[in-house]
Amino acid sequence: MENLNWIAVDWGTSHLRLWLMDDQHQVLQHIASARGMSSLRPEEFEPTLIALVGAALPEQGRIPVICCGMVGSRQGWAEARYSQAPCTPPSIDAATRVQTEDPRISVYLLPGIKQLPAADVMRGEETQIAGFLAVTPDFDGVICLPGTHCKWVHISAGEVVSFRTFMTGELFALICGASVLRHSVGDDGWDAEAFEAAVADAISRPSAVAGNLFSIRAETLLCDLGSAAARSRISGLLIGIELAAARPYWLGQDVVIVGESGIAAAYESGLAQQGAMARRVTAENMTLNGLRAARAKLAEMTP
Amino acid sequence: MENLNWIAVDWGTSHLRLWLMDDQHQVLQHIASARGMSSLRPEEFEPTLIALVGAALPEQGRIPVICCGMVGSRQGWAEARYSQAPCTPPSIDAATRVQTEDPRISVYLLPGIKQLPAADVMRGEETQIAGFLAVTPDFDGVICLPGTHCKWVHISAGEVVSFRTFMTGELFALICGASVLRHSVGDDGWDAEAFEAAVADAISRPSAVAGNLFSIRAETLLCDLGSAAARSRISGLLIGIELAAARPYWLGQDVVIVGESGIAAAYESGLAQQGAMARRVTAENMTLNGLRAARAKLAEMTP
Repeated sequence: MENLNWIAVDWGTSHLRLWLMDDQHQVLQHIASARGMSSLRPEEFEPTLIALVGAALPEQGRIPVICCGMVGSRQGWAEARYSQAPCTPPSIDAATRVQTEDPRISVYLLPGIKQLPAADVMRGEETQIAGFLAVTPDFDGVICLPGTHCKWVHISAGEVVSFRTFMTGELFALICGASVLRHSVGDDGWDAEAFEAAVADAISRPSAVAGNLFSIRAETLLCDLGSAAARSRISGLLIGIELAAARPYWLGQDVVIVGESGIAAAYESGLAQQGAMARRVTAENMTLNGLRAARAKLAEMTP
Repeated sequence: MENLNWIAVDWGTSHLRLWLMDDQHQVLQHIASARGMSSLRPEEFEPTLIALVGAALPEQGRIPVICCGMVGSRQGWAEARYSQAPCTPPSIDAATRVQTEDPRISVYLLPGIKQLPAADVMRGEETQIAGFLAVTPDFDGVICLPGTHCKWVHISAGEVVSFRTFMTGELFALICGASVLRHSVGDDGWDAEAFEAAVADAISRPSAVAGNLFSIRAETLLCDLGSAAARSRISGLLIGIELAAARPYWLGQDVVIVGESGIAAAYESGLAQQGAMARRVTAENMTLNGLRAARAKLAEMTP
């Protein structure tokens, strides 16, 4: 590919997204694959990458490949370091280099952020935060990043001041996919009223969550509860208790939700119910912005 | 088998336990199998039963086979009815008969109990309750039955007055076996101090559960948290929020825990921490007592 200048990579637990970029940081090609970190042994990362982009690589020179996400975890390609909060979102100057057999690429794994105490970690979200701050450098407030492990991140003066992770998305997937409630939920469908009632219920009585979850099973058996209502109630109960615990992060703060449309809308709706107005930005755009910022910094480092 | 009079069966979601009984209700033989309800299609229940007990059945006459548990659920051998709380624990007079191809058995599926409102169901626990009341007929208080779906049952004047189910055991199994925390926990080991701290933490701030769970992952990565402590903390967090929600059931009540030793001890310890002293009885004994009571009633009905 003639204009290829570098490759941006978001390599998460269950997904892999690549963008072939020109020297103006414009996307030449986007590739999405299901070969996430959790499906790969360390020696399989390079062949997986080359199988997807090898044909586009020039014969001469080395193309920078800048990666964020769980690819840098202990179970990933190589363990990248953590910066410690409070800190600016770490960038390419603290990246971990990976030796490759293919001489046409230079691979960088961006660092994560750790916090001690309270012990917490992120890998991937720091790049989305960097991407958001690249376009909103004066932001002072809270970034909420919903997903498998939702993060609430307090940002001030360009720094990640503190953050807190909730396993909400993973619990939702396990409960819908592998618990007795799998018989109650459908694959899709949304019942906004059921979601809102469940959020309110969970915020007012968070301890009842394991009982309120079983009620969904009982109402399926005894009251013909619909599958969309069941799914929305599970989501509302789990997001509701998270919002109750995350209150110090959103109360009276400027809140930005960085996420894909469905889940971001659910958090926005739950927050609105509590009187908190949040803005939404698209996660993928922020990831790409953050990787672009890393590429720009690399150019400054190696003119 | 010469003295075989009847067969007691506890057929749950993931287990099958049978007892071959003589006419004095003494156990001639005990058989345990992994062929639980969830692994069987409706037409597979009879062959499964006959494969285990067929050789013991006499040529003449029909042997009563009295079953409790999820075998009577919608996904089971046949759907048995529910009695509606408040009610005495239902017995053989409300059982569902199943037609069998083998002429040597008469199969009875004992009913469950339903509650409306608040919607709730049990299948199997009602037989343990009947077994407990058979030996403690004047009991007035609360029976806690921990397990996959823990039940808190208010008993008065021999009746199930009301009950509430929590998905605690199932959440524990999913989190330890299928979430990111599977990398943090071991298969066994117990840290009583970690458990107690987690119970206290969950009771004082139940909404933080999804965040406190992720902290276990972070402390594994950053602080070398041990696998026994991790497992005990997950258990303590989940039992703790349940105890917070179940407070109206145990506060100031005479509480009996019907369960296997490990899980019953965990609930006993969590309750003791809250100043509530509970007694423990063995679940299997109560199941067998309840099935014996059903057999005795059948004898009265068909002298």
